Amino acid sequence: MITVGIDVGGTKIAGALVSENGEILTSLKVPTPAHSTDELINAVVAMVQELRSSQEVAAVGVAIAGFIDADQSEVIYSPNLSLRNEPLKAKLEAKLGVNVFVENDANAAGWAEYRFGAGQGSKHMMMITIGTGVGGAIVANGDLFRGGFGIGAELGHTNFIQEGRECGCGQYGCLEKYASGTALLEAAKELAASGTAEGKRLAELEAEVGELTGTEVYQAINEADPGALRLLNELGTNIGKAVASFAAILDPQMLVLGGGLSVAGELLLKPIRESYLDHLPARGYRPEMKIVTASLINDAGVVGAADLARRHSLER
Amino acid sequence: MITVGIDVGGTKIAGALVSENGEILTSLKVPTPAHSTDELINAVVAMVQELRSSQEVAAVGVAIAGFIDADQSEVIYSPNLSLRNEPLKAKLEAKLGVNVFVENDANAAGWAEYRFGAGQGSKHMMMITIGTGVGGAIVANGDLFRGGFGIGAELGHTNFIQEGRECGCGQYGCLEKYASGTALLEAAKELAASGTAEGKRLAELEAEVGELTGTEVYQAINEADPGALRLLNELGTNIGKAVASFAAILDPQMLVLGGGLSVAGELLLKPIRESYLDHLPARGYRPEMKIVTASLINDAGVVGAADLARRHSLER
Repeated sequence: MITVGIDVGGTKIAGALVSENGEILTSLKVPTPAHSTDELINAVVAMVQELRSSQEVAAVGVAIAGFIDADQSEVIYSPNLSLRNEPLKAKLEAKLGVNVFVENDANAAGWAEYRFGAGQGSKHMMMITIGTGVGGAIVANGDLFRGGFGIGAELGHTNFIQEGRECGCGQYGCLEKYASGTALLEAAKELAASGTAEGKRLAELEAEVGELTGTEVYQAINEADPGALRLLNELGTNIGKAVASFAAILDPQMLVLGGGLSVAGELLLKPIRESYLDHLPARGYRPEMKIVTASLINDAGVVGAADLARRHSLER
Repeated sequence: MITVGIDVGGTKIAGALVSENGEILTSLKVPTPAHSTDELINAVVAMVQELRSSQEVAAVGVAIAGFIDADQSEVIYSPNLSLRNEPLKAKLEAKLGVNVFVENDANAAGWAEYRFGAGQGSKHMMMITIGTGVGGAIVANGDLFRGGFGIGAELGHTNFIQEGRECGCGQYGCLEKYASGTALLEAAKELAASGTAEGKRLAELEAEVGELTGTEVYQAINEADPGALRLLNELGTNIGKAVASFAAILDPQMLVLGGGLSVAGELLLKPIRESYLDHLPARGYRPEMKIVTASLINDAGVVGAADLARRHSLER
């Protein structure tokens, strides 16, 4: 059974024909019309039509950054897109004449890692994605854990520091403000501007003064610049503290680390592991989860969406 | 099908014959031999024998405060009892000749509330118990959520304040240190000793200076003493902050508040509700959970253990 997976991001829409084994058979990419819901829907429809022109498909899974309702039909709220209480499933099904399932993008990516990637074999798995923000996905007893209203696993929006930094979600002190790529870049900008010896290399790498980019921070990390490495280490320590509390609640067998920053590999895994163990309640009296990096990275959203659509389609 | 539920607490063991509808048919209570595993096992065996002397039983569920392994056979660690990596299921089954299932006590209580108490009808439910410590239970999609190693839902041991008060679990700043009955009593003792007008009534109620008791604090709350009420309000505010983060992860439809302090009713529910709403990420863009008090209180452990044993027994 071949299904289509679509991943609607803030800047691009990716889509693919995906086999039962999670293999990508054909893939496409277009820019996201982020400010018009009609154009966004038309872009998804056009992509699905192109993908299925040469191959019949059983269902379509659409991953999208935002709150999806428990029926997986409506996008309740998407912070980076124009969608608000949008009946996406119904609209797409009307235009496509095939079953459509809408899923949160982090959930889709986590599901892909569980089925075909780094999370295979752990029926209780947690994924945390570190990119622009901090996202999460939970697999419990071999099923995607979505919560009572469909919007659980928002690991980046748990409180990390009481009355801490203001977050886009309306709260203060969310983990995302202390452990995302955005938070790392902010800290690196401050360090570059500090005039200290530790910030010297970051300042040198700035193409434009005061406008340090993620790529430049990544270069500093690759050069083993002590300043950049300290910041990455602090980010990892923060993630480790947070996941120790998540483990007290979810007690997974494995944590899969995804998102753009996961390319840092051991440089990020090491402080996360150490900090997780240092902060694990009742350590020594309990099994400890494995911590690994994601293996599907960029394809996880489309592969997960396609596989979830296949699965739901079989359940009907 | 009649089953036995046993609830092994730090001071007493309670047991009962329980019907399929969660009704208690006969109940017993004895002191807990907390320092001898053999005596504890003998006490449980004697209680089960007495309960089934007049009635055949299909299975026995044993609820116990501690980490239970994923197979529900072994007590990995029980902080208030002498049990360490104890194969309780095997030992009890050998002596009783009937199926035995071991369960964490908060999980059993949460399950009872879901099946027969305040949590009925919400397939995604979270219980938080506020007593000596802070315990938790999670029902997800109509099933008890136990985690990958069987020791999830330890809501009281999530971090509440970074590098905060030292906790018995080896960590610092656990929620339990800011929102348990023990934390309330500590705060009340400090207030009583402060010599302030706000602490005057608490100081008067002390039978022995510096030795304020929980009963005395409860009396002050019942008298609407402003000092005691402020402390209760702060405790509720702390719980509300924490459950807002738990909701970001678990997204339950309902929170059931149990444990000794839940008898405070609206005095505690009100600050919890307000603080939950104040701290809920993306509030206004998502459904909100109901918050209610538990209805089974003292019987929840035995009823839940008995019902889980019945359920497991049917699955075999």
